[in-house]
Amino acid sequence: MDDMETLNTIFDLRKVKKIRGSGSRIEDDPVVKEVPLTIMLNNEEFATLVCSPGFEKELIVGFLAGEGILKQPDDIQDFFLREGQGVAWIETREKELQTEGFLCRNFTSCCGKGRPSLYYANDASQVNPIEGNAVFSVRQVLELAKQLDGASKIFHMTRGVHTAALAAGEAIVALYEDIGRHNALDRIMGHVFLNSMDTSNMAVLLSGRISSEMLIKSARVGVPVVISSKAPTGLALDLADQLGITVVGFARGNDINVYSHEERISDQ
Amino acid sequence: MDDMETLNTIFDLRKVKKIRGSGSRIEDDPVVKEVPLTIMLNNEEFATLVCSPGFEKELIVGFLAGEGILKQPDDIQDFFLREGQGVAWIETREKELQTEGFLCRNFTSCCGKGRPSLYYANDASQVNPIEGNAVFSVRQVLELAKQLDGASKIFHMTRGVHTAALAAGEAIVALYEDIGRHNALDRIMGHVFLNSMDTSNMAVLLSGRISSEMLIKSARVGVPVVISSKAPTGLALDLADQLGITVVGFARGNDINVYSHEERISDQ
Repeated sequence: MDDMETLNTIFDLRKVKKIRGSGSRIEDDPVVKEVPLTIMLNNEEFATLVCSPGFEKELIVGFLAGEGILKQPDDIQDFFLREGQGVAWIETREKELQTEGFLCRNFTSCCGKGRPSLYYANDASQVNPIEGNAVFSVRQVLELAKQLDGASKIFHMTRGVHTAALAAGEAIVALYEDIGRHNALDRIMGHVFLNSMDTSNMAVLLSGRISSEMLIKSARVGVPVVISSKAPTGLALDLADQLGITVVGFARGNDINVYSHEERISDQ
Repeated sequence: MDDMETLNTIFDLRKVKKIRGSGSRIEDDPVVKEVPLTIMLNNEEFATLVCSPGFEKELIVGFLAGEGILKQPDDIQDFFLREGQGVAWIETREKELQTEGFLCRNFTSCCGKGRPSLYYANDASQVNPIEGNAVFSVRQVLELAKQLDGASKIFHMTRGVHTAALAAGEAIVALYEDIGRHNALDRIMGHVFLNSMDTSNMAVLLSGRISSEMLIKSARVGVPVVISSKAPTGLALDLADQLGITVVGFARGNDINVYSHEERISDQ
């Protein structure tokens, strides 16, 4: 599938009345799709994600790996996507999975929706502190932020998605866009997991704010550095301090803010 | 509590290394707080929201009303917040609540995290179509978008929150900011619920994109018009068509895009 075909699957043209000053006109504008994707885990309905179409395997694997349900690529025995119906079947080698914790821990929704009270304590304690000595120069950080923006093609077309990317040195090695910023980062997780990548010298790049959940997901991806052009939250910074992660915010133009573990950001 | 005191409770000053071109300096910058808030419903732990501090009653009541657990203000027998501990107790008159549906329907997270497959069908079908004949002029819409931006004080200080507001005519009648855009809109829902407000001629204003979940929440608030300076998703527009809601996106400067039920937006 070429670039343009990929793009066409993720938006529709919708009629919109554009009012510009005192005039108006009807036009067809690209509006980003938002679709349900049901995960059948070992033939039982497990969850439905609401997401942008495409890269479903990366998304589902990243989601399940992030939840601790998949531990290694070999755990996946089979994966089958029924495109157009929004259903994917995933079969694991081990059928007796620890999914009760998932149900219990995630019984409500993110973005400020519910989590049981020990969520953070549990979740953060399940994540290993990052010990990588990777160093990114200020120039590299700014170059990556610029590249992230330039490569966010669906965003520039629709303004309706977030981007998450993985970078080594000053090269982006994986990039996903999605209506949900969590989905975009879950796809990065899936990409890393499926390719058994060593991310200890890499950085996660985010188009959105760095909340505690995005920080925990980045820690699960295994990167020592998280870079965004937006703001972090206080809880994300507390977790970054504890988990040994360098948080860079407001990376724009020639400027960056380093909020934690600044030893990984060099002047040159 | 005056404005400044309210602001101070929702951010901390954090040390940040600011790299500007070839120079750098350490400064204290306001970073928005992100805290857990556990809901004890009739003395049982029900859920923990992750949110900005403040207006906890509006948030919890809006969250529970949006989930269909509270039906009318009288359902609330008692509400008690232990500030600083992040725990709130809410007691309902009727103790046998329909919470299984909640557990089942929300067993994973939003922003693209999981929902059971019938979520949308169920959720949208639980929402009544909007029949209000309210009309907003283009001038009023633009005035409200401008006011929303100006009134988003925490955003302008921290860049770390989203805003949701309720407007009548060209006046904002309620406004909440939160690290989670769902929380901000849940507080609007709580505000409307606690004050038994008639919202049939009002609009919801959002600082973020209009996803299907934000559209459904706005329908639950009962407003016929949803206005944002950002993009809608395709699924949100499908639901807006069905539920009779006018969606206005990209409300910026002198321009707006009307995506659905344009009869409620008048030229004058």
